[in-house]
Parts: sequence; C-alpha cells; structure tokens
Amino acid sequence: MSSPASGDEPRILLCNDDGIHAPGIQSLASALDGLGELSVVAPTTEQSAVGHAITVRDPVRAHREEFEVPSGPIPAWGVTGTPADSVKLACHELLDTPPDLVVSGINQGPNTAVNVLYSGTVSAATEASILGLDSLAISLCEWSEPQFEVAGQWARRIVMWALDRELPQGVLLNVNVPALSAEDIEGIALTRQARARWEEGFEERTDPADRSYYWLSGTFVNLDNGSETDLSAVERGYVSVTPIQYDMTAHDAFDAFDDWGWDESAEPDTSK
Amino acid sequence: MSSPASGDEPRILLCNDDGIHAPGIQSLASALDGLGELSVVAPTTEQSAVGHAITVRDPVRAHREEFEVPSGPIPAWGVTGTPADSVKLACHELLDTPPDLVVSGINQGPNTAVNVLYSGTVSAATEASILGLDSLAISLCEWSEPQFEVAGQWARRIVMWALDRELPQGVLLNVNVPALSAEDIEGIALTRQARARWEEGFEERTDPADRSYYWLSGTFVNLDNGSETDLSAVERGYVSVTPIQYDMTAHDAFDAFDDWGWDESAEPDTSK
Repeated sequence: MSSPASGDEPRILLCNDDGIHAPGIQSLASALDGLGELSVVAPTTEQSAVGHAITVRDPVRAHREEFEVPSGPIPAWGVTGTPADSVKLACHELLDTPPDLVVSGINQGPNTAVNVLYSGTVSAATEASILGLDSLAISLCEWSEPQFEVAGQWARRIVMWALDRELPQGVLLNVNVPALSAEDIEGIALTRQARARWEEGFEERTDPADRSYYWLSGTFVNLDNGSETDLSAVERGYVSVTPIQYDMTAHDAFDAFDDWGWDESAEPDTSK
Repeated sequence: MSSPASGDEPRILLCNDDGIHAPGIQSLASALDGLGELSVVAPTTEQSAVGHAITVRDPVRAHREEFEVPSGPIPAWGVTGTPADSVKLACHELLDTPPDLVVSGINQGPNTAVNVLYSGTVSAATEASILGLDSLAISLCEWSEPQFEVAGQWARRIVMWALDRELPQGVLLNVNVPALSAEDIEGIALTRQARARWEEGFEERTDPADRSYYWLSGTFVNLDNGSETDLSAVERGYVSVTPIQYDMTAHDAFDAFDDWGWDESAEPDTSK
C-alpha cells in the first residue's frame, strides 16, 4: 500500500454494492476492526450488477449513517449512486485524507469469471485502483443465507497482507471465499479469471395490459477446464485471489492483426 | 467473423449507448448499408457511462421502432435497459438468428483510456464478445456538434475488414475516430489503452430545502507518454484501433505475488 505518514494508522475505506445496510459490509468492518482507521462510504441502496456505472447526468447525495464495530462507532456515509460513485465521492469530498487501502465487500454471492465485469463490488475496487489507491474486492460464494464470519477472517488476513506489501501499479485483488467452515478451507490460491458465461435465459411474460416484458434468467456455464482459475479454486475449497487490472488491452493479441492491412491507403474505400 | 451459411449475407447487429434515436447509430446504419443484413437493438433512452451494467432486478421491455437506411427499412427495437441488456435480448429473444458481427456506436465522444470501463458503447460490444460473437465499438472523438460522416466511412471500412477476417477468441476492437475531415486523417493505428484518468471534481450545491448535493465534474489527465496509446493516436490524427478483452486478469503481475507467503498456514491468523 501507499505508506501512511510514519506512526499513523493506515486509513481503510470500505465500500460494497449490496448497500450500506447489507450484512456483508457490517461483517467486513467488524472483521477489520483494529487494523487501522476505518470508514465506510457505500451506496444507500443495493447496486448489484451495475458494473462500472458512474452517475454523470444526475447529482448524487451523501447521508451520514450510524456504523458500529466492536471498538466503537466509525464514520460512515450512504451515497445515492453507484459503488464507483461512492469511491470517487469518498476520496474527493467526504474523507479528509484519501485512504491507504480500499476494501469492497463482503459481497453476497461469487464474483468469479465474467461476473467481474458485471460486479459493482469489484468496480468499487477498480475505481480505487484507477485513482491510484491499493484495493481489493471480497465476495462470499453463497447467495442464500450467507454466513460472513469465515470470509471476514480471510478478509482480515488478506488486508493484513496488503497493508504490509505493495500492489503492482494498476493491479487490484479480486478475492472469492468458498462457503465452507474455517477448517474446511484448503488455503489460498492465486488464480486467473475463468472463461465462463451466462447461458441466458429471458422469460417472456405478459402484463395486465397485455404487453410483453422480459425477465433475465440463466445458468452459469464454465467453458474453462483450467485448474488455475477462480472458479476451480473455489470449487476445490480454496480462497481464490485473482490479480486483476483495468487495462483491457489484449496485449497478446496484437500479432493477430499483422495481416489486416491497416497500413493500406488511409482513404476509406467506400466504393464496395 | 463466424462464417454465415454459404451464400447468405452476413447478419450485422447495431447497438449503442446514446439511445436508438441518437444520430450516431443512424449514421452507422446508413454507412453500413449494403454490407449485410442489418438490424438495430439499442436502449430506448441514453445510457452513457452505465458501464457493463445489466438489469437483474427489473424486467425489460422491447418496442419495435422505425429505422431507415438508404436501401429501405431495417428491423429495429428499442430496449428499456442498458446496452449489455440490449445485446443479450437481441441475441436470445428478438433476432431469429444470432448476428455474425455486432457493431456498437457511433458514440458521441471518445472512448479512449479508462473511459473504456465507463462506456456503455464498449460494454455492448464486450457483451457480444462474451456471447462468443465478433464485435467492435466505434466512437467519434467529438462531444459537441458531431459530424458522423467520416467516422461512418471508417466504420464501413473496419466492418469490411472484420467481415473478411477472424478476431481472436475473446478479443474485440475499440475504435476511436478523430474529429477531422476525411483527408486530414492519417490512417489507422493499432494501439493500447492509455493510462489516464479523470481528475475529479465534485461541485457541491445546496437545494431549495438547504440539503447539499454533488455534481460530478473533472478534467481528463493523460498520465501516459507512450506514442502507441489510443489517446496519442487520436491526437496525431489516426483512427485508433485497440484490441481489448474481457479477461481482466493481470497475467503479467503474478510474479509480484511470489513473496506474499500465500502458502503459509491455511488457518487465518486473527490474533493480531
């Protein structure tokens, strides 16, 4: 992390996409109690699947919220916007000093494979990375009746690691914790994002005025047999840690364009 | 692209984030007239900066729209959702056959550097890539009074290229066209996403009831001196073509985690 002034406690900002009243962020705050100066800036309402949306056409508001950890109250704001908005507003307006580390979560449900792109939890951490801050996102791989205690313990451990070390520039950590008891977790695995996708899935219905509408539904399909993926690690009982980056350039694909003839006449041929 | 049945015209789906009534998508459709079987599925309303948001908590609707290109009417639907929703719904419900190529744009304003993450235009193309389809996003680097004709000519040229070739799996093209006359454009440059960011910028105001609210504002700052970036190419008068991917794994950063001691005891140390 960027070093805080010598002797100062590290400043840790918490965010999420399930909203400031979700149990996951409360569990995260309690789990990190004592590791530094905690503050919470998170959306007022659930913002799942908003991806990296930011609010550019409307104003956003921030409201002070009560937030308690075992050692006492910590500063907290609910923001009427997206997770990325919340991180921006926290760093530019709400906090006196930018945080040393941004931790987003604990999300209810996995953010593995292509869900990284849809996830508001990850986008809060990505936004922090864009702003030049060390960050990580933590998700519990359980949708229904999540028990956050074990994920909180791992969040604490990984945050301690991150506070002691330096993340490469432009790189953040996407952590997925399997829904297992502490003793059934096998350890940590450094992973890559699995190639997988949703096989959708729209259910067409008709409203009382006889107009049709669609509900998105679908099943998640893993197209990737690699054992080094986030999906595989979680399935095998490991806490998956994927280093991710916001540079979306397909650096390894440049050679494929060698024969595209880009260098031909600059004048577009619109005769065809 | 995936080859259409022999003798068939390629099916090209158009999308955007400025909304189905925006001039950019009309210019794109007209520019691509004659290259294949065109259809349009795009958000009913402007969806700029929604990133890769998808609608999971609400239903979406689709309405037939009138859409004309020089050779006649083409099928078109407006969708009450995001660009990514539009592509999903098009491919799964609205079109009889999935498209061979998805083209998103022409966006009003650049989608260079980190704007790739915020852009709904790019996310429509990314969603197509996730679905296994060849795709590209096209943006005109001009916010006010955009003239789409030259960008349309380049869109046509690049689409002709893409129809004749195969994109690497999981890779799509992010195209940015400078706001120049046809003869002032230098040619095409294959580029990477520049490291740059918004230096925000919230303006705090007070509403009539004396409650404060914030408007996001800011200036875009290029932190990257590389001449091979999207930003540099556009500044130098080139059409920037960046191969991008939805795998966000920081593959080159794995070595940095060698000394993180991940393999120590699997039991989280919560004693500290």
